[in-house]
Amino acid sequence: MSRRIRRTPYTDSVEKLGVRGFSVVNHMLLPKAFQPTVEEDYWHLRRHVQIWDVSCQRQVEISGIDASKLVQLMTPRDISKCDIGQCMYVPIIDSDAGLINDPVLLKLAENHFWLSIADSDVLLYAKGLAIGKGFDVSVKEPEVFPLAVQGPKAEKLLVQIFGSDVSKIGFFRFGWINFCGTKQLIARSGYSRQGGFEIYLNGAHLGKKLWNTIWEAGKNSNILPGCPNLIERIEGGLFSYGNEMTIANNPLEIGLEKYCTLDGSIDFIGREKLQEIAKSGVKQKIKGIIFDGDPCPTCSVPWPVTVGEKQVGAITSAIWSPRFKSNIGLSMINHKFWGQGQPVNVHVPNKAVYNGKISDTPFKD
Amino acid sequence: MSRRIRRTPYTDSVEKLGVRGFSVVNHMLLPKAFQPTVEEDYWHLRRHVQIWDVSCQRQVEISGIDASKLVQLMTPRDISKCDIGQCMYVPIIDSDAGLINDPVLLKLAENHFWLSIADSDVLLYAKGLAIGKGFDVSVKEPEVFPLAVQGPKAEKLLVQIFGSDVSKIGFFRFGWINFCGTKQLIARSGYSRQGGFEIYLNGAHLGKKLWNTIWEAGKNSNILPGCPNLIERIEGGLFSYGNEMTIANNPLEIGLEKYCTLDGSIDFIGREKLQEIAKSGVKQKIKGIIFDGDPCPTCSVPWPVTVGEKQVGAITSAIWSPRFKSNIGLSMINHKFWGQGQPVNVHVPNKAVYNGKISDTPFKD
Repeated sequence: MSRRIRRTPYTDSVEKLGVRGFSVVNHMLLPKAFQPTVEEDYWHLRRHVQIWDVSCQRQVEISGIDASKLVQLMTPRDISKCDIGQCMYVPIIDSDAGLINDPVLLKLAENHFWLSIADSDVLLYAKGLAIGKGFDVSVKEPEVFPLAVQGPKAEKLLVQIFGSDVSKIGFFRFGWINFCGTKQLIARSGYSRQGGFEIYLNGAHLGKKLWNTIWEAGKNSNILPGCPNLIERIEGGLFSYGNEMTIANNPLEIGLEKYCTLDGSIDFIGREKLQEIAKSGVKQKIKGIIFDGDPCPTCSVPWPVTVGEKQVGAITSAIWSPRFKSNIGLSMINHKFWGQGQPVNVHVPNKAVYNGKISDTPFKD
Repeated sequence: MSRRIRRTPYTDSVEKLGVRGFSVVNHMLLPKAFQPTVEEDYWHLRRHVQIWDVSCQRQVEISGIDASKLVQLMTPRDISKCDIGQCMYVPIIDSDAGLINDPVLLKLAENHFWLSIADSDVLLYAKGLAIGKGFDVSVKEPEVFPLAVQGPKAEKLLVQIFGSDVSKIGFFRFGWINFCGTKQLIARSGYSRQGGFEIYLNGAHLGKKLWNTIWEAGKNSNILPGCPNLIERIEGGLFSYGNEMTIANNPLEIGLEKYCTLDGSIDFIGREKLQEIAKSGVKQKIKGIIFDGDPCPTCSVPWPVTVGEKQVGAITSAIWSPRFKSNIGLSMINHKFWGQGQPVNVHVPNKAVYNGKISDTPFKD
């Protein structure tokens, strides 16, 4: 692997622990699996605690006099409601209301933000906008390497290491922990529904120490290395930029209405277009699908979903769910066919056609 | 692999032909090797002809009334000198003169351009700038999938398939070929020094047909599937965005002076900063290094280069060269130590220290 695809301060550790392959997000390595099957990783995540190298969640740091003005222009969500110490999920859109990214915004101070991004160079969009508008801001990628601790035993473990204040951090809020004489940001957040925290480590040289500290302390809690788990993510209805949504989609198709202020009280790029779409109603939306057949392969190109002879949508992510004893998928579905329980056919690449039905997400027992 | 990392119209073909792994560029698969060793791929490329899936060279299409204004703002190169039908290597920089990308510009018509990009989302930078400036342009990624035909027998092969007009295309110029009733852009260009062409296929559904047409016709010329070759690239002094240069580097450090118009006759973002740097002189620059020892591993983090006790630079890409019977590398080197023949020490990750000397690029016999 060349330098273009960047290693992280934790890559040595995950290699030593037997990582079974990497994906690439934001030009950086993201571990893909550890146990022999995704299902083993899944059950462990639901029962114990895992340590995840999510350094690929790069931060776009926006600071300076015009910082909040720039951030607000980029998103339909009203960021004036964001407190210092709060995380906010903020869709970022272009002038056609197309999704550029769906990061988590962290407000560090007035006019000092991090956007913790999914897989696209938001840094370049923010730079372009700032230059074009003549804003007085700094836009850069700081040396911050998020490490996630996820699973039901995560809180107990981090309290054991960093003290009881960790417990007081609310959901999608962050606080600070002391580590090796440094102050590090810790948020109650993460790309799973199992609960947990993300430590936004500032300073690559402390990476090995942080990993080892958590790893050693976690042995009593049956800690294992892990990574975003496809079964858990789909069951939990967590969408992935690049899979469930691209620049061709608007936030209303992705079910992000509650993050869009369309009453004219805030100004942002793409507002007119988004208001138009809201007025006429979206023609398609993300839905879940439960479908039969043998455990399905990975979805690397969208799979057609049909009703009768008509294609009514496409599955963008799918996997066998051990909880539901069925295949489940996330899909973009035409508005006439998106009702709960709507029967559909799913066409997987081996030419098999399976019976399925539309479901809301997260999938429920 | 998920949908987030996109397959190309040629991925099925390269898989069938035994691709030995992929890299990811612009969120898309790039084949990494075919023969058992990089050296076998290398010798074949130098002697025969190869077909490369370089669909990951995404196009950023900029069109509309303000298109040339936008493109000019993005680069220090004077694009008014670019003819329709010409390709131009254009560094793109930000307001600090940091390199955002180093694409090839294709001028399709007045106010209609493609930027054929390296690994960063230039689309988002261009969008941000255009929105910020209020320009009347369209900025999008068209469904264009470049396929490269590289090697000394490339021209003969393409003449055989598409006719003698292919021969008339000058270096870094493009023409049009007829294929299945469509007109396709073909340029004399490519990421090798062995000569060749890139077909910018418009229309994914024609991908298999194009691949097979070239493949079948190429059998007489000993055609093989290939990909950018690390030995050939380093020997030839072809730099890679993300490896030899990042946003932390300015174009003068990369030796791109001849592409920078600094006399004030054109206006572009980062001009003042670049003029300042030019005036005071750069403190470091890309140089080659020839060094001894066993064939070196892949460079996944920069390797320190020292003179005495002092670190004077770092190697960013390196490989064993079968032609020079030595290791060769590309490196960023302090101005006091960049003279041809300067002795240095190279520190590879296995703790070995090798003797080396600075060399100009391309490396010469």
